[in-house]
Amino acid sequence: MDRKTVEQIIDGMGLGDFSQATIRDIQALSRLLEEKTGEEVIHLEMGVPGLQPSEIALKAEAEALANGCATIYPPNGGIPRIKQAASDFVKAFIGVDVAPEGCVPTTGSMQGTFATFMAMRHAFAGTGRDTVLLIQPGFPVQTTQCDVIGLRHEALDIYSYRGKDLIAKLEEIIGQGRICAIVYSNPNNPSWVCFTEEELQGIGQIATRHDILVLEDLAYFAMDFRRDLSHPGQPPFQATVARYTNNYVLWVSASKAFSYAGQRIGVTCISNALYHRVFAPLREKFGVGAFGDFFVGRLMYTLSSGTTHSVQHAMAALMEAAVRGEYNFLSDVREYGRRARFMKEVLLANGFYLVYDNDMGAPLADGFYFTVQYPGMNDLQLTRELMTYGIAVFPLDTMGSTQQGVRICTSFFRREQEPLFTERIQRFHREHQAVQE
Amino acid sequence: MDRKTVEQIIDGMGLGDFSQATIRDIQALSRLLEEKTGEEVIHLEMGVPGLQPSEIALKAEAEALANGCATIYPPNGGIPRIKQAASDFVKAFIGVDVAPEGCVPTTGSMQGTFATFMAMRHAFAGTGRDTVLLIQPGFPVQTTQCDVIGLRHEALDIYSYRGKDLIAKLEEIIGQGRICAIVYSNPNNPSWVCFTEEELQGIGQIATRHDILVLEDLAYFAMDFRRDLSHPGQPPFQATVARYTNNYVLWVSASKAFSYAGQRIGVTCISNALYHRVFAPLREKFGVGAFGDFFVGRLMYTLSSGTTHSVQHAMAALMEAAVRGEYNFLSDVREYGRRARFMKEVLLANGFYLVYDNDMGAPLADGFYFTVQYPGMNDLQLTRELMTYGIAVFPLDTMGSTQQGVRICTSFFRREQEPLFTERIQRFHREHQAVQE
Repeated sequence: MDRKTVEQIIDGMGLGDFSQATIRDIQALSRLLEEKTGEEVIHLEMGVPGLQPSEIALKAEAEALANGCATIYPPNGGIPRIKQAASDFVKAFIGVDVAPEGCVPTTGSMQGTFATFMAMRHAFAGTGRDTVLLIQPGFPVQTTQCDVIGLRHEALDIYSYRGKDLIAKLEEIIGQGRICAIVYSNPNNPSWVCFTEEELQGIGQIATRHDILVLEDLAYFAMDFRRDLSHPGQPPFQATVARYTNNYVLWVSASKAFSYAGQRIGVTCISNALYHRVFAPLREKFGVGAFGDFFVGRLMYTLSSGTTHSVQHAMAALMEAAVRGEYNFLSDVREYGRRARFMKEVLLANGFYLVYDNDMGAPLADGFYFTVQYPGMNDLQLTRELMTYGIAVFPLDTMGSTQQGVRICTSFFRREQEPLFTERIQRFHREHQAVQE
Repeated sequence: MDRKTVEQIIDGMGLGDFSQATIRDIQALSRLLEEKTGEEVIHLEMGVPGLQPSEIALKAEAEALANGCATIYPPNGGIPRIKQAASDFVKAFIGVDVAPEGCVPTTGSMQGTFATFMAMRHAFAGTGRDTVLLIQPGFPVQTTQCDVIGLRHEALDIYSYRGKDLIAKLEEIIGQGRICAIVYSNPNNPSWVCFTEEELQGIGQIATRHDILVLEDLAYFAMDFRRDLSHPGQPPFQATVARYTNNYVLWVSASKAFSYAGQRIGVTCISNALYHRVFAPLREKFGVGAFGDFFVGRLMYTLSSGTTHSVQHAMAALMEAAVRGEYNFLSDVREYGRRARFMKEVLLANGFYLVYDNDMGAPLADGFYFTVQYPGMNDLQLTRELMTYGIAVFPLDTMGSTQQGVRICTSFFRREQEPLFTERIQRFHREHQAVQE
C-alpha cells in the first residue's frame, strides 16, 4: 500500500498515536483503508470467530421457535435445560461440580462479567475490601466494565511474575486487605499464557485463606491445544482454580469454542458455596442476601430479564451433544492453532520475537492469540507501521501490558492469505532491517 | 379452594403480609397452590403476553440463521436493517423523526432502560442535577434498576395530579434543580392511565425549559384502544412527548405489541438532539462525550456487546411489514382489550371499584392492565384474600402507588375461564359482603 495514502487516512480518523484506539477503531480504520486503496488488509486485530457453527445449534433454535418459546419470558436464571446441560458440561470437561442452580445463562459472557462485577460492587460495598485485581495483560473491556459500574480495580502484569513469584506477589497484594476478587482469563487474552496447575493451586489457596473470590474467564475454553481436552469425563480437563478453592465464578462462553458469538450467549457458573453465601450489604440494601439469589433475582432480572429463549436451547444442545461425545467442538477450533503455528514461523524468521513467550519454561500453546514485537520501535509505532503494509493488529499497550508488542488474532486469517502474509512480512523486515542498519 | 390449605402454603413461603413480594413471588405461590390443591388458579398477576407471535418474525430468524449470522458479532449499536426499520416505524406510527443512528436495539426494553439509567448516572454525575423522577404507580423493576446502578430517584404519584395540576406539580419539583429526567410509561403499567396531549405538551415544555430529559416507556405501544393507531403514516399516532421537546428517549418493546417477550428485544430511540449532545462528565471520565456514542460504544458494548443477531432480524422484519401495512400487530393484541372489558364488568357488578378510573374525565382504555379495589380491606389483604379464591393478582402497594388496590393483567386470561372467574368473584362478593354487614 502507498504509505502517503495510508498516513492520510490514519490522520483523517483522528486516531493520533493509537494510544486511545479501541479494537473497533482499528477495525474501522482497516476497512476504510481497503475501501480507499482497493487493496486487501489482512485482519489480525479482531477476536471474532471465523468458523461456521454446528448444525446442532441451528436445529435447536429452530425447534425451540417452532415450540413457541418466542412469546414466553425466559426465567431470569435460565431454562432448566441449559442449567442442567451446563452443569453436566462443566463436570465432563472441567471435572468440577457446579449445581444446575449455579449455572446461569447470560447475553454473552460479556453480560456474565458485567453482572458479576456488579455483584462484587454491591456485595463488598462499604467493607473496605472493595477492589478487584485484574491480571494483565487482559481484555480491556473488563476494565471499562469496572469503570461503568463504579467498581474499583487494580492491575498486575504477569510478565515479570510467574510461578512462585506470582503467588508471592499476589499474597503481598491481597494481604493488604483491599482486594475482594482476582480476575483473569485462561488461556489469556492477548498473550495466550495458561496458568500452570501450581499457579492455580496457589491462587486458590490464597482465595480460601483470605476469603476472597476468583473470577475465571474461560472465553477460550479448552483451547490450550498442547493437551487434548476433548474427551468428556476423562482427564486431562480444562485447567481451573475451581479445583483449589470453593470461592469462584467461571465464565464459559459460546462465542469462540462454539463459534456462536452472533447469538450472544455464555454461562456464568457460580460455585455451590458462593451461590448460597450471604453478604450483609446485599441483604441490607436489596433484601436478598445470598449471592446467587441476588445475581439471578436482582441483576439478571434488571439487566435484561434473562437471555434470549431460543439461544438458550442452542447452547444447551451443543453442551449436551459435547457431553455425549457426539460433538467434538475442538476439532473445529483446532484450525486456530494451525494458523498460529504458521504465522509465528513466518514472523520469527523475519526479525520478530514473541513477547509473552513461555509458560514456566514450556512453549506457549498455539491458539487464538499470540503476541509479537519487532525491535527498534514501540508497540504503537509497530501497529501503525504494519497497517501501512496492509496488516491490522492491536497494540498491547491498550490491553494493560507493561510490555511493548502487538496482539495477533488468528481467527480471520484464511489459508489463501498465507502467501500474501509471508510476502508482506518479508518486505516489512527487508525495509526495516535496512533502516536499522 | 380450602382456606386453611391456602393459608398454610402462603405461610410456608415466608411471604408474610405480601408487602415485599415480587411479581415472580406471587407467580411462584400460585403455581405451588395449583400443584398442592389440584385446582386451577386464574393468573392475573403476570404481565406476560399470551399470544402467538407472527410467522414474519420466525421466518426472519430462520433466514438470518441460515445466512450465517450466528457466528458474527452484531454491531454494538445494532445492524443497519433494524436501525432503519425502527426509524421508519417510529415515523409511521408515532409520527416523529428519529435518525437510524439513534435507534439502538437492546436485549429487551429492560436492557434499554438499564442502559439509559446508566447513561443518566454518568452524564449528570457531580452536577447536582443527578436524580430521576419516576412517575408512580409504575413498573417496580425500574426502581430496582436505579438502586442497582446507584442512580438517585424520587417518585410522584399521579393519582392526585392530572392535567394542569400535574404540570404545576412537575414544575415545582423540577424547579428545585435536582431532577435530570422524568420517567413514565404510556399507557401506564399498572393503571393504564394515558397522558393527554395537553399533559404531554406540558411535560415537554418543562423538559425544554429546564433542559432535562424525558424517558418514555412505550412497552404497551399503541394499546390505547380508544383510538385506532394501526394505520402507518396516518394520524392518530401513538401519543408521545417527542412532539413537544427534543430531549427524549423512547423505549419501544417487542414483548407485548409483537408478543415476542421470549426473544428479549426492544429498541431504544434516542432523539437526534440528545444523541449528539456532549456531556462533560462523559468526556472527562470515558473519553466519549456525545450521549449516543457513549450509549453505544461504552454501554451497549460492556452490557452484552449488542443484541442477539437473529432476533434483530425478527424485530426488523416485523417493523418493516407493519410500516408497509402488511402486518397489523394491533389486530392480535386487541384481544387484551376485550378481556379487560369482560373482567371489569364482572368486578364492578360485584362490589369492586376501579382505582385509577379516568383520563381527565374520559373513561380509561381497556387494555393490558387495570386496577381495582374492594371496600373494607387494604391491597395486601385483598391480594391474599383473592388468592384463597384461586385468583392471583398483584398489589399496587409494591408498585409505588399511594392508593389501595390491585393490578389485574389480562394477558393470561382465557375465554374458557370466564364462567370460573365470574363464579369465583360472585362467591367472593357474597362472602365478604356478609362479613361487612
